[in-house]
This record gives sequence, C-alpha cells and structure tokens, in this order.
Amino acid sequence: MPKKIRLGIIGGGGDSLIGVLHRVASFINDNYEIVGAVFNPDYEHNIAFAKEIDVPTNRIYKDFDTLIEEELKLPEDERIQVCSVLTPNFLHFPMAKKLLDNGFHVICEKPMTMDYEEAKILQEAHRNSGKVFALTHTYTGYPMVRQMREMIKNGELGKIHKVDARYYQGWINTVIHDKEKRSSVWRLDPTKAGISSCMGDIGVHAFNMVEFTTGLQVKSLLCDFNYLYEDNQMDVDGTVLIRMGEHVKGVIRGSQVATGEENGLAIAIYGEKGALRWEQEKPNFLYKMSDTEPVQIYKPGHAYNSELSLGASKMPPGHPEGIFDSMANIYLGAAKAIRGEQYNDGEFPTMEDGVRGMNFIEGTVASHKQGNVWVEMD
Amino acid sequence: MPKKIRLGIIGGGGDSLIGVLHRVASFINDNYEIVGAVFNPDYEHNIAFAKEIDVPTNRIYKDFDTLIEEELKLPEDERIQVCSVLTPNFLHFPMAKKLLDNGFHVICEKPMTMDYEEAKILQEAHRNSGKVFALTHTYTGYPMVRQMREMIKNGELGKIHKVDARYYQGWINTVIHDKEKRSSVWRLDPTKAGISSCMGDIGVHAFNMVEFTTGLQVKSLLCDFNYLYEDNQMDVDGTVLIRMGEHVKGVIRGSQVATGEENGLAIAIYGEKGALRWEQEKPNFLYKMSDTEPVQIYKPGHAYNSELSLGASKMPPGHPEGIFDSMANIYLGAAKAIRGEQYNDGEFPTMEDGVRGMNFIEGTVASHKQGNVWVEMD
Amino acid sequence: MPKKIRLGIIGGGGDSLIGVLHRVASFINDNYEIVGAVFNPDYEHNIAFAKEIDVPTNRIYKDFDTLIEEELKLPEDERIQVCSVLTPNFLHFPMAKKLLDNGFHVICEKPMTMDYEEAKILQEAHRNSGKVFALTHTYTGYPMVRQMREMIKNGELGKIHKVDARYYQGWINTVIHDKEKRSSVWRLDPTKAGISSCMGDIGVHAFNMVEFTTGLQVKSLLCDFNYLYEDNQMDVDGTVLIRMGEHVKGVIRGSQVATGEENGLAIAIYGEKGALRWEQEKPNFLYKMSDTEPVQIYKPGHAYNSELSLGASKMPPGHPEGIFDSMANIYLGAAKAIRGEQYNDGEFPTMEDGVRGMNFIEGTVASHKQGNVWVEMD
Amino acid sequence: MPKKIRLGIIGGGGDSLIGVLHRVASFINDNYEIVGAVFNPDYEHNIAFAKEIDVPTNRIYKDFDTLIEEELKLPEDERIQVCSVLTPNFLHFPMAKKLLDNGFHVICEKPMTMDYEEAKILQEAHRNSGKVFALTHTYTGYPMVRQMREMIKNGELGKIHKVDARYYQGWINTVIHDKEKRSSVWRLDPTKAGISSCMGDIGVHAFNMVEFTTGLQVKSLLCDFNYLYEDNQMDVDGTVLIRMGEHVKGVIRGSQVATGEENGLAIAIYGEKGALRWEQEKPNFLYKMSDTEPVQIYKPGHAYNSELSLGASKMPPGHPEGIFDSMANIYLGAAKAIRGEQYNDGEFPTMEDGVRGMNFIEGTVASHKQGNVWVEMD
Repeated sequence: MPKKIRLGIIGGGGDSLIGVLHRVASFINDNYEIVGAVFNPDYEHNIAFAKEIDVPTNRIYKDFDTLIEEELKLPEDERIQVCSVLTPNFLHFPMAKKLLDNGFHVICEKPMTMDYEEAKILQEAHRNSGKVFALTHTYTGYPMVRQMREMIKNGELGKIHKVDARYYQGWINTVIHDKEKRSSVWRLDPTKAGISSCMGDIGVHAFNMVEFTTGLQVKSLLCDFNYLYEDNQMDVDGTVLIRMGEHVKGVIRGSQVATGEENGLAIAIYGEKGALRWEQEKPNFLYKMSDTEPVQIYKPGHAYNSELSLGASKMPPGHPEGIFDSMANIYLGAAKAIRGEQYNDGEFPTMEDGVRGMNFIEGTVASHKQGNVWVEMD
Repeated sequence: MPKKIRLGIIGGGGDSLIGVLHRVASFINDNYEIVGAVFNPDYEHNIAFAKEIDVPTNRIYKDFDTLIEEELKLPEDERIQVCSVLTPNFLHFPMAKKLLDNGFHVICEKPMTMDYEEAKILQEAHRNSGKVFALTHTYTGYPMVRQMREMIKNGELGKIHKVDARYYQGWINTVIHDKEKRSSVWRLDPTKAGISSCMGDIGVHAFNMVEFTTGLQVKSLLCDFNYLYEDNQMDVDGTVLIRMGEHVKGVIRGSQVATGEENGLAIAIYGEKGALRWEQEKPNFLYKMSDTEPVQIYKPGHAYNSELSLGASKMPPGHPEGIFDSMANIYLGAAKAIRGEQYNDGEFPTMEDGVRGMNFIEGTVASHKQGNVWVEMD
Repeated sequence: MPKKIRLGIIGGGGDSLIGVLHRVASFINDNYEIVGAVFNPDYEHNIAFAKEIDVPTNRIYKDFDTLIEEELKLPEDERIQVCSVLTPNFLHFPMAKKLLDNGFHVICEKPMTMDYEEAKILQEAHRNSGKVFALTHTYTGYPMVRQMREMIKNGELGKIHKVDARYYQGWINTVIHDKEKRSSVWRLDPTKAGISSCMGDIGVHAFNMVEFTTGLQVKSLLCDFNYLYEDNQMDVDGTVLIRMGEHVKGVIRGSQVATGEENGLAIAIYGEKGALRWEQEKPNFLYKMSDTEPVQIYKPGHAYNSELSLGASKMPPGHPEGIFDSMANIYLGAAKAIRGEQYNDGEFPTMEDGVRGMNFIEGTVASHKQGNVWVEMD
Repeated sequence: MPKKIRLGIIGGGGDSLIGVLHRVASFINDNYEIVGAVFNPDYEHNIAFAKEIDVPTNRIYKDFDTLIEEELKLPEDERIQVCSVLTPNFLHFPMAKKLLDNGFHVICEKPMTMDYEEAKILQEAHRNSGKVFALTHTYTGYPMVRQMREMIKNGELGKIHKVDARYYQGWINTVIHDKEKRSSVWRLDPTKAGISSCMGDIGVHAFNMVEFTTGLQVKSLLCDFNYLYEDNQMDVDGTVLIRMGEHVKGVIRGSQVATGEENGLAIAIYGEKGALRWEQEKPNFLYKMSDTEPVQIYKPGHAYNSELSLGASKMPPGHPEGIFDSMANIYLGAAKAIRGEQYNDGEFPTMEDGVRGMNFIEGTVASHKQGNVWVEMD
C-alpha cells in the first residue's frame, strides 16, 4: 500500500504559474505530499505563501542550503524524498547537483542547465547518485504524444524519412518592439537567461518532441536565427535544418514573434508507410495519414491505444484532459521510479533528454554564429 | 489566511472515475483537504482505498449514518465542513438532505434526485439549512462557457431568438443492441436509474447549459424519445422542442446511440445581433458569429475575456485546460461560498439548477408518454 | 462521339446568381451548348444579356411560349433538347409541365412546384412524356455526399437508427428585424414564395439529403416553426421531428435566422455499426465514426471511394472542388440520361425527389398549423 | 459588348487533368471560346479529342508550327488571340516565345521555362511583343489569397518580420521507394523534368505565394534537399531558409514524400501588428491573428473583403468555390488585360513571377550543391 512520496519544492511561490502547474500535477494521482519547501527567497513571503496554500510551516526553510542541511538531520523515513526545482534557470544546475549529491531524487524544470558543460557534469553526478532525475518536458506527458511514440516504435510508419516540428509563440512581440523593454527584460539578457531565448526556451521542446516520438537522434544541424533589432542580442526566432541519419532530414522551427500564436507546438513525422501529425493546442487529436487510406483520428482513452498512452488518461474518451494532466503523467512516472516500481521507457523525460537538449541549444547558437554552417551533435 | 476546507467524501472509491474527478478537482486550487470519507459500502474496501490514496484512516467510517453521527461529536473546527456526494443516483437525495439537515455544506453529483418531488423537498431543506449546496454540472466550469454567459448577459448577441443544444454519445450502443445486456444493465432499469436514461443522464446537462448561458428559462417543451427495441423501457435517444419566451424557440437533442460520438455536448445561441457556438470536446474555442463580420474565436486566458471566465483559467493562453480544471472551478466557487467570501453568480451550479433539471427530465418523460404534447415547466 | 447537348435556358439573366451557377455547371464537362434562351422577361435586357455572354441572339426569344413555339418549328436535330428552368418559384410548375408536354427534357430549380398537388400533376406529365427530368438539389452532386449514400447502401453503418440534419443560414436577419422590409420582401409573401420560407427554401434540401443518403423515407413528421414577429406570416425557422421506420427517428432543423451561419447544411447518420458526418461548408471532408475505431476522414478522388463518388471528382485528392463542380455533376448525370447512356441511381435528383419534397413542405406547414401534431407523409 | 476571346490550346488533350482545369477555367466567366488547338501531338488523337469535346475540327492543327502558320493567314478578327500552353515543361519556353514573337497573347503553365536563362530570354521577348503573358500560378486566384495580399498591402499586419510557407505532398512515395519506378519516371529524370523535382514543381508555388502575398522579394536563400536514395538524382524534399530584407526571415518547405499529404500548400505571414494563415485544402478560410484580440476568420464574398478578393467570388458566402474557380479568376484577369480593360495588380501572375520563380529554383539547386550556402537572388 503506497504512502505518499514526501515532496519538497524549491521556487514556485507567489503567483508563479509554474508553481501552480507542478503543485497540481503532484496532487493529481494521489502520489505526493508537500512536506517541505523554499517557495520564495524572501522568508516572509515564503512563510506567507505556505500558509496561503495550507502547507505546514515547520519545514519551510529560509533558503535552499538550509533545506538540505535540516532535512538531512531528519530520519530517512521522514525526510524529503524528492525535490522539484522551479527556480530561475541559472539555479537549476547547482541545486539539482547538490540535491543528487545529497541523495535526493530530483524533478527539474527545463532548461536543465545554463550550458552543455554543466549538463555533462550533472549527468555524471546523477550517474553517481543512483537517484531518479525527471526533467519536465511537459508535452511528452500527453496521451497522444505517447501514442505517437509507440506507433512509430511499432513500425506503423515504416522507415522515417522526414520530420517537421514547430514551436511558435507571439508573446515576445510586446517586448521586442519596445526599445526600452527589450533592453531590460531578463529573458533577453544572456547573463540571466542563458545563451538563447527562443531555442533555449521553446525550440528545445520541439527538439525533445522530435527525439521522443521518433526514437531517432539528431546528428547534425544548421541554424539561422532572427533578431528583429540590431540592439537585441538574443534569438527570438530561428529555423534549424536537421539530419537524423542517412536521408532522414527535417526542420525545427521556433519563434517568439509569430504574432498571434499562443503556444503553437506541433509535430509531423513522415515515414515510408504512413505519417503522424499532432498539435499541442488540440492535444487530444492525433492524425494518422497514409497515401492510400482515409486519414485516421486517434483520441485518448480508446482501447486501440497503446499501454503507454492509456496509462496517461484518467477519463473515458471525449473528456478533455489538458496541460495539468500532462504534467501529472510525468509526476506519475517519476513516482513509479522513486518507489522502485516498474515503469516504461517514456513515462518521464530523463537526464539524457536534458543533456541532449543543452547540446542542441549550444549547437544552434554555434551554427548561427559561424554563419549558418552544419554543426555535429555529440 | 485560508486554512483548507475540511472535505468529506461519500462514494467514489475503487476505480470510480467520478471519484478521481472530484478528488483531483478538490486539490487543484489548494482549497480542500479530505479529512473523512465513506468511499465504499464495504468497510474493508473502504479502508484499503483510503490507504491506497493515503488518506488517514481514523475518520474513514463504516457507513454514511456513522459518518454524520461521529463527525457531529467532533468540535466544530475539526468537523467535516462539506461533503461530496458521489453515490449511486437514488442515494443523492436522502444523503444530501441529511447532510443539510445536520449543518453540513454539500457538493452533489447529478441527477440531484430521482424525481422532481424529491428535488422540491431538498430545495426546502436547503433553504432552511442556510448551507452551501453546489451541484456538479461540470461543463459550466469551462472558461469559455462562462464567457458565453457573460457575453450574452452583456447584450453582445442582442435579443436571443434561437437555441440549439446537443449532447450525443454512442457508448450505449454496445449495450442496447445486445438483448442480454440491455435487460440487465442498471442504467436501463428504471428502478435503479430513474425514469429516464438519456435525458436524465446527459440531456439534462444540455438543458442546464441552455439556461446557464442564456439566463433564460425553458417555459414549455415537447419531446420524442427513441427506444430502438420494444423490450427496452428507457429512452436512449430523444429530441426536445423548447420554448423560452415570446418567439424564442429551440431544440435540445440527446442521444446515447449516436454511434462514434464520445462526449458530444455542444451549444449554439443565436441572437438578433450575433451568435455563439461551443463544443465540449474542443472546450477552449468559442466562436462568435455575426452576419456581417468575420467569425471570432475567443480563447481562455486573454484579457478580452470577462472576469468570470478569467477566474476559471490558471495558465496563459495556449495551455489547454480540461475537464478536471472545469470541475476544479466549481469546487473553487463552492470554496468561496463556504468561506463566506464574495463570489459571482455562475461560479457553481446551485440547488435551483438541480430543481429545474428534475422538472425538465420529468417534463420530457411526460411529453413523450402523452404522445409528444407540449408540457409546461414550472 | 458525342455532340454537345442543345440547351435552352429560361431565366437566370442579368446578375442572377443561379444563372451563373447553371451556366457554368453546363460548361464544366463539355456536354452542353446554350442554343436558345429567354434570360429575362424584358426583351431588350434579354438580348443585351445574350450579347454580354456571347450567346447567338437568333434564338433568344421574347417569352417562354414563343420559345416553345419557335423551337418546335425547327428540325429535331437543331431543336433545343433540354431546358433549364431558373424562373421565380411559381413559374417552375407551368413551364416544366409545358416543356415535358412538348417533348423537351427539363432541368428544374427547386422548389419544383408551389404545392404538393402541382407536384403530383407534374409527376404524371413526366410519366407520360418519357423525357428526362432533373431537379437541382445541388448538394447531392458533391463527391462525399455520394460517397455517404454508397457506404450506407453497402451496409457500412449497419441498420440506421438516428438521423440528424441541419440547414442554418442567418441572412434573413437583416430583413426580419426591420418592420418595413419584412412586410415587403417577396420571400416572406406567401402569394409569391409559396406556403413556407425556411422549409420551402432550405429545409427541403436537408430533407432531400436525409432520403438521398440513407435510402430511407420519412414516414411521419411533427414540426414547430418560429416566426419572430407576429406580423410575419412565414416560417423563418423550424424544427421537424421525423420517423423513418420502426425505431428509426431523427430531426431536421432549418433556420434563416441562425445569425452568422452562411450556408450551414450538415448531416449526420448514425447506424448500429458506424456513423457518417458531413458539412456543406467543408464539402471535401467526410467523417466516418465508430464506437471502437479511430474516426476516419474520407476525401474525394481516392481509390477507396465508390464509383459514384469518383465519377464526381475531376482532379486528384487535395484539389478542392466546390459548389459549381457539384452542380456540374448533376448536369453530367442528366447528360447521360438525355443521351440514353447508362448512369447510376443518384447521378441526378429526380421527379420523385421533387414530389417527396413538396409532400414534406406541406407536411411541416400542416403539422405546425394543427398545433405541432404528427402528420403522415404519403 | 464583349465578344468572347478566341482561345487556342496547345496540349491538354486525352485524359490530361491540366487540360480539364484550363478548359473549364476558360468557360467559367463566359470570356473565352476555343477556336483552334493542338491538343495532342498525334493528329488522330488530336481530332478525336476535339470531336469528343465538340470543338470544331477545322482549326485543329497537326502541330504547333502549323497552328502559328495557318492562324497568321486568317484575318486578325478571326485569328486566335491567346494561346494556353499546356505542353510538357521543356516546350513551354520555345512555344511561348514563338507565340509572343508572332503577336499572340499567352497563358502559360508553370514552370515557365527549363532554366533561369530561358526565363530572361522570354522576358525580353515579352517586353518586345507588347502582348499579355499570364502564368498560371493557380493558387493566387483564390479569393482569400487575394484578400491576404490586400490586407498586407494595407498595412494590417504592420511591418512583416517572419514568413512560413509549406507545400507538402506524398504522392511520389509510391514511385521513390520502388527502385524500378524511380529510375524510369520522367519526373525524376533531369533531362525531361528540369533540374529540380520538388522545388521546380511545387516549391516554386510556395515561393510565389510568399512574394504574391507579402509584396516583398526574397533576397537570398539557403537550401537543403533530401533524396531518400543515392541512385535518385532529383530532390523530392527540401527546406529553404529565406531572407527578405533587414531582419525579415522565413522558411519555405517543400516535399513530395510527406506521406499522406495531398496538396498541402499553406502559408503564414507574421507582422508587427498581426498575422495571417491560410491553407489550400480549406481555401475559403483565412485566419487573422493578433496577440491581443480573438482570432478572426475571413471568408469569401463578405462585404468586409477587398475589391480584389470580392472580384474572385461568384456566389454568396457559404457556397464553396474551389480550384477550378481559382484558375477561372486568373483567366478572368487575363481576359481583362487582353481586351485592354482596366485590371488590378494581382489579377493574374505575370512574366515577372515566372522569372523570379526560375531564379528561385536555380538558387535552391545551387545552394544545395554548394553545400547549403547562402545564394543571392537577382
């Protein structure tokens, strides 16, 4: 009989949206209980927030280091088992590393680290720790994305030969076209946001979807960024040509200035025998195409879906589940791993996804800076 | 600083889907804590389930009456404040009534009662209790349904003259076409399911949507049911002509044999100046139409939406929320009412919705039995 | 080697839209040549229009009777073979009858006649003539509508048990809400437009689609109209309950005040084994649904379609054909019949469709006037 | 009073689909009459086809040169005024040139020539001829594509900063994966089809749409092709990065191995203030997006559309027009030009579009062959 997993949360206080997303996701399958946290660097806000969401304040700590220190003093069966790291990007690496080094499991927001070098160090730390590390590439939690992966794995498309992924948003328009704003927002400041805006924030999701669904790896890439203004150092838009093997090519398109697009992640995979198309904003519709048969629309919860997909639905067909449910599926997978239960490949994104992602982001920047040349991935 | 509301749950144990839906909905906005329950009439299963979802077993009771009795012995600030009633249909009325009579708030699944008579008795009990009663017409929790209501209230459609609602499912096909199954399933047994299958289970949702979004009331109706087989006593399909006032007419269509339809609730409201269309399976898209302007697609989370709609979204535009979030919005509204906070009309369906619904169901049956004649609603 | 069929046109001059539609449809498959016409009751306009569209003026007649008279003087191999009747509604019957009586084939706009009585007289005249009579229920010319018919005929849905058709437009709003306009427009004047506006003009199309696709007949109906204003004598909206046999029921919904709807004809047919859904505004997408398999999207031009459907496509898949092509398919079917070539049932709507349609229209009016009672169809 | 324009047709006989498309398009607006032709290089087939479609055989010529020679002997007011060139690709250039040189107007299928050099020669011939030359980039004839162009021209999107066009088909899969077939089909033989398959056949349409709708020109491009098999010399897939000015970037994606895609031309244009999206397979729906307002769906025939768009619709809103109507709009524009009537920029694609297209195709091949480097367009 499972007891709830003792969860710690770093960051995500106040009106943080990512905080709501993780907290709800942790509740959805009755697997986690928040027992400790540093919701906010300001201790008063920290405590106030804990009270607001009715988490006991006795294990609300003044900072991250104190959390580690104090939790380690507790007996193992009371101690936080896993920490969700929801802090600003540059803190993901040091916190995740310290948690792993001290024997905690980690659920980490993306980007996993600030650069590829850090990613490889964290990978090493993870290997040594023997702990669970889950990276929240949320979109892999959708039932129809999981169904894509399984259908491709089962050969339903035949040999893949063409990949087309897109992640378009328009929200940065209101910032980028205003000289004042674009020089002050942290997103467009490389010292705070990392070397890339568009690829680092959303392009990497599209990249992850490509590898997650196809089971193939990007071998090399060629990238062209768009800046819109000379005084803006960061990519707000970019197109990446990719090669995934002998005559397997594709394109990843990212934009934060695709006006009017909300959260336009979409992916299409074309193979010798069939193709699959999916869009994040209509997540419960998966289109299977062939040159000779009617298009088929797969939907969640039907018996014709794979086990991996069915495990990601709670309700019968026609009851839309959404982004919170998708994140909950990742927490569910992580819970199985933390408890040492059996789970399938694909139930949560891993350290390897994080390392690949940082490799990709650095590759796009390198390709662009060197004049849009081909860059090999490791 | 709010403390979580102490929630009791009656029913919803084991692999009950409605149990999952309510439990998750109660968690989503950090407002409720499950402190007591009778998940299952079998005490062993009851306890086992509590352990499985990690609810403390000390207030897991052997039956509903014991729950009432024991909770009343507790000091008021420890006692369950609100109970969610998720039991089979025929138990909704006696349980909800006893809860109200004993000073508990109630969140109740639909149909609220087995007949209109019971509904009026419950209404009286509620009036006397001064407690909160929320009926879980889940679909009213969607942000775009709430937006419909507000746009109509604000006169954006002008005078309404035509209403068209549909709730089509196909799941009962596998039962109805099998002589053995259709004579044994509880859904099609009037002693267990009530006087109606299709109208009682889903038609009433469509009816509720019509009144919720337009702010108008159905005055009279004429209904024709379809049975498919002579030996089946219950409606599995029906069409209802409705009149909502001087030259305001419409139709409510319900079916459980609409083959291939999953959970096809849809509504269109036509007024002198404009119209609105919405479908449950794509809940985040609301279509505003006019005879002279381009169709507009409203989506959740945008500043152009009403306060009632914005309060029902947690994430920015483009992050799909679904049925769990919709139910959570109803729990959120109920929480405000339970705490005596201010809330807007429409944040949760009320006793009046329940009474109207039972009036509607009985009306459809009466109209059909009397040979498809017009029946007045109260 | 076919020579083009000699076509005469009555009506459709000036800026008549129906004139354009028929003229283009007649050209599309290289089957017809316009050799004579009375485009307009005003002779000068008539001649001017012939010149404008470059039709030789020697057989442009001053009126319909003269056309008949003069054409009969010509040798048979020069004479008009078929006439398209595009005049105001009340002229369809006398003109079609005279044409048939004088040995001309007829292509006739709908409504075929002003009432059911006329329809039966015309049917008799047609029977005696031995000539081809095609009624332009345009929507039956779409390849995916024809595919519906064939799939149902082949039993792919099993026994039909539920039918739902809709024809919603909003254009009459601008007339009906203006007291001046609604008292003066011919459409709402029963002496000019016939006994019904909404059912006569568009509801009858929906009715025809129901019978065309299912191969079943409506046995009885119950109808409720909506008028919006007391001073308006004509239905601008109506809902019709239908019965098509033992436990086969359905609904036909028509409206000319469905604000913002353009030409919203749609149909869904539900059977024991599957269902089909189609919408006129996206005519090249046909949805096949089942309770257990993914939804399938049929599109025109694929080898998986029936012969009847494939014969209605000119281009390969993905090249949208539209309303002109649909009408052209009806002209193509009529051409085969006129030439005495073999053709399939369903290649053009017939006299029987017209008679059924008038029976339906009268039935809806009778049902409504008698207080929404059931009316039998013949 | 216009007399029909005397049209000659070269090619398009037998079961040629392009022949049907042009012939119907020429009929649709009552502007053209076919008076002479060489439908087929085989004279017997040529005559047989003329009889089949009932074109007088007296001016059906044995070959192209004879057509020119004989027509020139006719008085000017009987002579063919314009010829449609529908022959295999390699004949477009010499035929179009000879026609222009001899004083005929030309309507020419694409690709206009086999290479850029030829295109420039033809451009010179055209300049000297003073005749009308229309290139049938069919998709520019759609009302909503024309609406895009006008909305962008009117500044509704503000400064354009991002362009994304796609033309995906899957039909070549059945050829390319079969070693026998891919070595024998003319499409993949550079001596017959020209230097490119995918870009030459469909990529160039996407390119044309980009320039047609935005009014901007592609300045430079970088292209990567995909071949699938080493023994296949021709591109069947390719992605093209484009730059259209200071910080105006984009991507053009073409594929003939995008399994299950039928005729998937789509375009999205993003500007500072708004964006537009359109897809060829749903040609009557144009999406206008902004970051702050509801998405708007523009449809043909509404008074809110531009003059250029309204002139491309024949029927009221909701009556779908398709690919034949689109081509007819180009013929209509050409007719105005041939008659010396006034017409708007954009009513038909011009010689300049053809020259740009060949420049683009050669650019993509050059970029790919040189290792995916940037290539300037003239």
